[in-house]
Amino acid sequence: MNTIESLFSSESFKSRHIGLNAEQKKELLAAVGVETIEQLIDQTIPAGIRLKKKLALEQPLSEVSAIARLKEMAKKNRVCRSYIGTGYVDTIVPPVILRNILENPGWYTQYTPYQAEIAQGRLEALLNFQTLVMDFTGLEISNASLLDEATAAAEAMAMTFAIQGRDHEKSFFIAADVHPQTIAVVETRAKYLGIKTVRGEGSTFKFDQPLFGALLQYPGTYGDVTDVAPFIQSAHDEKVLVTLACDLMALVLLKSPGELGADFAVGSTQCFGVPMGFGGPHAAFLATKDIYKRQMPGRIVGVSKDATGKNAIRLALQTREQHIRRDKATSNICTAQVLLAIMASMYAVYHGPQGIKKIAERIQGATSVLAAGLKKLGYSTNETYFNMLTISGVDAAKIHALSDGSNVNLRRIDSGSVGITLDETTRLSDIEQLLQLFAEGRGAAVNAATAYSLRKSGVPESFLRKTAFLSHPVFNQHHSETEMLRYITKLQSRDLSLAQSMIPLGSCTMKLNATTEMLPVTWPEFGSLHPFAPVDQTRGYLEMLRDLEVRLAEITGFDAISLQPNAGSQGEFAGLLSIRRYQESRGESARNICLIPSSAHGTNPASASMAGLQVVVVACDTSGNIDLDDLRTKAETHAHHLSALMVTYPSTHGVFEESIQEICAIVHRHGGQVYMDGANMNAQVGLCRPGDFGADVCHLNLHKTFCIPHGGGGPGMGPIGVKKHLAPHLPNHPLVKCGGEESLGTVSAAPYGSASILPISYLYILMMGEEGLRQATETAILSANYIARKLASHYPVLYAGKNGFVAHECIIDLRPLKETSGVEVEDVAKRLMDYGFHAPTISFPVPGTMMIEPTESESKPEIDRFVEAMIRIRDEIREIEEGTADRKVNLLKNSPHTAERVTREKWELPYSRERAAFPAPWVKESKFWPSVARIDNVYGERNLICACPPIESYT
Amino acid sequence: MNTIESLFSSESFKSRHIGLNAEQKKELLAAVGVETIEQLIDQTIPAGIRLKKKLALEQPLSEVSAIARLKEMAKKNRVCRSYIGTGYVDTIVPPVILRNILENPGWYTQYTPYQAEIAQGRLEALLNFQTLVMDFTGLEISNASLLDEATAAAEAMAMTFAIQGRDHEKSFFIAADVHPQTIAVVETRAKYLGIKTVRGEGSTFKFDQPLFGALLQYPGTYGDVTDVAPFIQSAHDEKVLVTLACDLMALVLLKSPGELGADFAVGSTQCFGVPMGFGGPHAAFLATKDIYKRQMPGRIVGVSKDATGKNAIRLALQTREQHIRRDKATSNICTAQVLLAIMASMYAVYHGPQGIKKIAERIQGATSVLAAGLKKLGYSTNETYFNMLTISGVDAAKIHALSDGSNVNLRRIDSGSVGITLDETTRLSDIEQLLQLFAEGRGAAVNAATAYSLRKSGVPESFLRKTAFLSHPVFNQHHSETEMLRYITKLQSRDLSLAQSMIPLGSCTMKLNATTEMLPVTWPEFGSLHPFAPVDQTRGYLEMLRDLEVRLAEITGFDAISLQPNAGSQGEFAGLLSIRRYQESRGESARNICLIPSSAHGTNPASASMAGLQVVVVACDTSGNIDLDDLRTKAETHAHHLSALMVTYPSTHGVFEESIQEICAIVHRHGGQVYMDGANMNAQVGLCRPGDFGADVCHLNLHKTFCIPHGGGGPGMGPIGVKKHLAPHLPNHPLVKCGGEESLGTVSAAPYGSASILPISYLYILMMGEEGLRQATETAILSANYIARKLASHYPVLYAGKNGFVAHECIIDLRPLKETSGVEVEDVAKRLMDYGFHAPTISFPVPGTMMIEPTESESKPEIDRFVEAMIRIRDEIREIEEGTADRKVNLLKNSPHTAERVTREKWELPYSRERAAFPAPWVKESKFWPSVARIDNVYGERNLICACPPIESYT
Repeated sequence: MNTIESLFSSESFKSRHIGLNAEQKKELLAAVGVETIEQLIDQTIPAGIRLKKKLALEQPLSEVSAIARLKEMAKKNRVCRSYIGTGYVDTIVPPVILRNILENPGWYTQYTPYQAEIAQGRLEALLNFQTLVMDFTGLEISNASLLDEATAAAEAMAMTFAIQGRDHEKSFFIAADVHPQTIAVVETRAKYLGIKTVRGEGSTFKFDQPLFGALLQYPGTYGDVTDVAPFIQSAHDEKVLVTLACDLMALVLLKSPGELGADFAVGSTQCFGVPMGFGGPHAAFLATKDIYKRQMPGRIVGVSKDATGKNAIRLALQTREQHIRRDKATSNICTAQVLLAIMASMYAVYHGPQGIKKIAERIQGATSVLAAGLKKLGYSTNETYFNMLTISGVDAAKIHALSDGSNVNLRRIDSGSVGITLDETTRLSDIEQLLQLFAEGRGAAVNAATAYSLRKSGVPESFLRKTAFLSHPVFNQHHSETEMLRYITKLQSRDLSLAQSMIPLGSCTMKLNATTEMLPVTWPEFGSLHPFAPVDQTRGYLEMLRDLEVRLAEITGFDAISLQPNAGSQGEFAGLLSIRRYQESRGESARNICLIPSSAHGTNPASASMAGLQVVVVACDTSGNIDLDDLRTKAETHAHHLSALMVTYPSTHGVFEESIQEICAIVHRHGGQVYMDGANMNAQVGLCRPGDFGADVCHLNLHKTFCIPHGGGGPGMGPIGVKKHLAPHLPNHPLVKCGGEESLGTVSAAPYGSASILPISYLYILMMGEEGLRQATETAILSANYIARKLASHYPVLYAGKNGFVAHECIIDLRPLKETSGVEVEDVAKRLMDYGFHAPTISFPVPGTMMIEPTESESKPEIDRFVEAMIRIRDEIREIEEGTADRKVNLLKNSPHTAERVTREKWELPYSRERAAFPAPWVKESKFWPSVARIDNVYGERNLICACPPIESYT
Repeated sequence: MNTIESLFSSESFKSRHIGLNAEQKKELLAAVGVETIEQLIDQTIPAGIRLKKKLALEQPLSEVSAIARLKEMAKKNRVCRSYIGTGYVDTIVPPVILRNILENPGWYTQYTPYQAEIAQGRLEALLNFQTLVMDFTGLEISNASLLDEATAAAEAMAMTFAIQGRDHEKSFFIAADVHPQTIAVVETRAKYLGIKTVRGEGSTFKFDQPLFGALLQYPGTYGDVTDVAPFIQSAHDEKVLVTLACDLMALVLLKSPGELGADFAVGSTQCFGVPMGFGGPHAAFLATKDIYKRQMPGRIVGVSKDATGKNAIRLALQTREQHIRRDKATSNICTAQVLLAIMASMYAVYHGPQGIKKIAERIQGATSVLAAGLKKLGYSTNETYFNMLTISGVDAAKIHALSDGSNVNLRRIDSGSVGITLDETTRLSDIEQLLQLFAEGRGAAVNAATAYSLRKSGVPESFLRKTAFLSHPVFNQHHSETEMLRYITKLQSRDLSLAQSMIPLGSCTMKLNATTEMLPVTWPEFGSLHPFAPVDQTRGYLEMLRDLEVRLAEITGFDAISLQPNAGSQGEFAGLLSIRRYQESRGESARNICLIPSSAHGTNPASASMAGLQVVVVACDTSGNIDLDDLRTKAETHAHHLSALMVTYPSTHGVFEESIQEICAIVHRHGGQVYMDGANMNAQVGLCRPGDFGADVCHLNLHKTFCIPHGGGGPGMGPIGVKKHLAPHLPNHPLVKCGGEESLGTVSAAPYGSASILPISYLYILMMGEEGLRQATETAILSANYIARKLASHYPVLYAGKNGFVAHECIIDLRPLKETSGVEVEDVAKRLMDYGFHAPTISFPVPGTMMIEPTESESKPEIDRFVEAMIRIRDEIREIEEGTADRKVNLLKNSPHTAERVTREKWELPYSRERAAFPAPWVKESKFWPSVARIDNVYGERNLICACPPIESYT
């Protein structure tokens, strides 16, 4: 300790985040065959692109100091009573759900449930979600969440367009009383797909022009509950498909979209116990008729059977998904909002049908009292409503000034009218306050009791729902907190998360989601703000967002950042649109070719297609690198129409391609722009920057590189960084000033995407500093190379850089085993469960392989355990190869082994129960039991059940 | 909805807390054989004691409103930078520990680990705790926590007294520089035990009077690090045993008490990552030499083997414990501070030896900088110190005024000196602020850098620790957050808690600990206050405490409440002292007889003995009631010396005795006072009140009736209620004005005990209201009677009231099974684990029985599952009785069955693996696996190991 500063330097966060200590790093370096980490990096990353200076980031803050800084920012946010509505309302998060799901790493660190046998808990919760959506919408099938109501509406439009045969002569009708942000997002989506849109009044529209689809809001954004059935009838007469964007809480009392004849229903489940969070994350839904299920975007959960005949849940209809259909896809959606969908479904489980009905009735009742009071005061409002009143004939400026003084936010509509939306949290005292506010200057007054006596329902009798909902037992059993806690705990116990063992998902970067990073997410100052709150109430947020943008720009080498895209797929879409908008501004709208290497993520071609681009595939050579000659040829061929190249770096093969600068230069030479997929950014931070070596735009998966937890399959965040020339084209928002002057339009419902989870990434950067971030990257690369070395003699490692090193992940080849033993990559994935591990990414980017990414957060003992598991499994395969084990009945084919199975009276398998369940010593120390055996995918597809199955089916 | 209020009434908390809904209540009533709940209560509780009115409590608040009220109170607390020290310092709770232990129901709802096979997680954490205490104190054995440092010192004194042969001629020496609250607690304890105390300077004391023991503080309360070895040497020469009260963080750098020759070391582990919480809860420790282990108070954790030869941890040396030794006990201690001990041990696991050394060095270094700066400014301070400076020659009033203006608290010593204690959270800016503060008015200034250059160590070289600590692997493996999280998760997965299934512990009332109740505990406004902070900073706390007192007084029918006792045992002790002090004030000090029914909790006689009372046992009749004739005879015989009767109501047999009023009257007639044990208060709340039917004083276990979670064996809170005449004698505190004018003295280190967990009970009362509390009691009684009815034909139910109803718990008799089948109550307890249940209380109050208490929080399905498990076990026993199963090798004797065991290759047991592990259908749905098989108690006692065993021993 030589300086006073060093005396007071507290423990660094980086030693908590990075899993290897100095000693272990040395051991790994030795195993990899280099002296120092610098040597390894020099031999891994091409010299030409190495960052020449250190990132200009401030000194790292300790966890305590970082939280203190966030707290200071939080204090600059002012939490007011919000009546702004417009798709976002205040809600009560049941504390048992808050603590045991949203704040619980056992839930939020789970991965997407692709390995369904160890994900039955969240799959059940998602099945509950689909069931509740189907119940309330009255439609036959629902997906397991989309990003927000606006993008869900855009998805419905795209889906309708595809179903109707992609006829560009026909238009899409958007009712004038759809939420403004939804209109903006839908129109942005339409523009680049070449879809014409028409706006009009639903009630008076004459169907006097050719339409393929229509979108209505139910109830309308200004509150009216109107009869949409006639519109739907007329639409159907013209073969036009209709989407209703719905308020889920209103549907508790109102006739369902299904009853009204709608073809699609979309909406948000935010009002079911998910904090507003300044815009997100929340789970939206899309429900439709059974006949359209194969066109559905997003994930759908379905019930199947396991190898023992027991009910088991899985992701259904996966062949629809974008990563399979690529440029045939109508949607690039990938991330869902699983954690939030689970919260909403648990809200329904906790309250049950009676409880939710009571809540909806209270909200409606409160609105009717307010309406009566306002009428008494001489104001006029809409006559029909669920929870939203538009009050006209007011001096809006005056009333907003008054309400601001009372810490109350009303919706700004125009100079003569304001809006008020009530919600679950509205109390009698709120009604009194509002009536007093509106009484000022009227020379009249009305008290709530009088208003109560004058009230009448805002929902015409004929619109009232008569059908039952949430009648499945799961919604009728867990209404005491003890029962609810146990239900949550039971489901959690079926799911493997980072709290148990590593989840070495190549391309998904399952690193530590530190508790300190998670703390501010549920602070009311961040959780309770409405996304459209006045800017003087959100200064803390805005300061944090700007700070984060500056840091992300420095880390990536870009000039501007947009935080609007709320998933990686949205980032890709927004990034491509920024290029298209740029080219449009230069009179180059004709540029519509997008080059994509054959190894790309499936989202890439899907995004390109959504951006109205035509995909041209560029070949890869046998080392997995882009074939430069092919690129040159294709760039040249399409020079006049070349819009962009989409490229992942390091490549999806886990290699730092030497020629990346040349690749970018070729594209630029032919007038194209370079879109970089940031999925593998965790291999670059602090060592090289996409903005420096040729990318014009890049999205960042904050839920990969920047520590937002995966939440079992969402939320994510996909902000984009762009070079200066693209900055004017960044996304804007119809209600909140943001983005560029010549903006591409709007891609998410909220101006800053899922703002409430951005403190996670911000804190991560603050606490790591330049050194920490760089060392994290170096360690991630070191650990990946260590695994590659350790496994190389057991499984061939595909692809490496010119010096033989991989980037931050490695691909091992299991294809040869098929012939020698009949074992497929899936068998190894399932067998890993018996060892207590989640499988790495399988069959991407190369079918029959595994892509392993340990990240910097894993310790050497954990990595060694994983390596040992893989080696032991190789030995088990060898027994088959050598004929000592059967090709069909063996440890791998029967995996995973459940407790029920290995304790059965009869045991007719040719290996021991012990080998089945406890194949390694550490498993005895701590065993994670899969709750079902191998799931039958074919059965599930043949017998698609996407709602909670009746209890009898379990017996 | 007929009124505006009912329209806005939100969901009631009581429907979340109470596990039975209206429908289920009806089913239970029918099974019990009554029409209404009123009928059941009328037939259960004697009419003479029924409350004639409703409790005067305000209308229940919703969860949201209750939290809002608490938040308002919280805002009235001012969180200042605290340098008060005196045994409490600020500390950093590692967020991974905060979230995943302190805020995690999987940890905090665990019960005391008496059923060790399903408690291996917390037992390992406690073993780590003992190991760290042994390492730092250099002593041979430690217990697994005591209530606070002051009571730990008192326990050491009592233990020393017993070891030394209880010679009342000899005195106990207390050094003048022991913390003031410790002196007060030790002297209070001494007074009633008839122990003389002597205060003096340790360094100059001449041993010129007969002593049996001595207590020194190390370092002293004013900061000095003096050489205590000469004192210890002289003491040993005189056969005097020495206790050192230590600062655990100082011991990181200082020679250990063991090296210095001390016989005992006590202290607090609060500084290891446990919030100050306005006084608690925190875990204290007591360590000593191996030869004294059988006299140790509190719980000791030890390693043994399970039935398969695997290491397994359990509570060791239980025959020492108060509940066995009754009036021979030197301590009544029962509750430990398990949750906090676990937090402290995890802090050590997370930081490891290097990390903790760095923290201690930083604290010491910061103190030396401050000392040098103060010296430069012309102040004089102690020359030796770890982290505490006493600055003399100051105008204390002026400096306190100055510091208060800067939101800084210094320790108040006297008019010419102030104290400053630094801690883990001290930053450079804090030192700068302090130096500036002390520079004011001095015409001089010094900056921190200068001070740094002038600093010298406060610890003389010869006092420095040379010995290693925390060298066990467990303290050297989990230093990344990922590893730490997984360690916590792994241990948690071994323990059954209320998050999994009911824990029907008779007399322990394991009810819901609602999340809303838990939220404020970790708010900084409640968590970060120093217990001796100036009252103008603690107004929110004081308001909440008063409010709670008023409500507890109304609920119990008493006139005054003391919140000081921080465990039920402390409450008993304080309650008896209030009686003794009252009698002393009336010149009746000679009253020293305490009547205790034979059925009493073991703590009762132990507490009486600690209060200097002689226990006379009163017989019970065959129905378990107090034998009135025997009581009359004994009260009469001892009339002149009768101090008190201790009685539990409803009785420990789970029955509302009809004669309770008569019992109280008899005692009063003979000049005695009635002490009521409040363990069973959950059967009374809202229906009858101890203060109304004859009790003069009663303690309340807030961790039973009032929802403080058990935390795996602590914390608890044991406030007492007293009638008016006893109020002047309630506990006081040497540093904070509280308690009565003629106080009994001080029983806890902090004025309001474990203040930070009191919001839990307060919120519970606020949210339940009169109706909710009463219905909870009624439901608890209903459910207990339901279980009694359901089990009666399978196991004899012992004891019932005159109409055949039990109170809130029931006792079933398993003794006859011993003869018919060889099955003992323990076998049934262990077999219940295979069914996924924690056993009820066993062998208390009657050996060979089980006492079952479902509480109001359990649902009918859960209760039915438990009943079915018990019936199925009875059927398993019948197989033995009928000879179809073996008497020695059977499902019960071999229970619990671990996963490892039921998957072994060889299976030589006469029943199936499936019956062993999955004995009921719900177990297949969700199986909790015991991590070890039946633990060998005898082996553990013969081979006592109370520290982490070497890794090799696991193989």
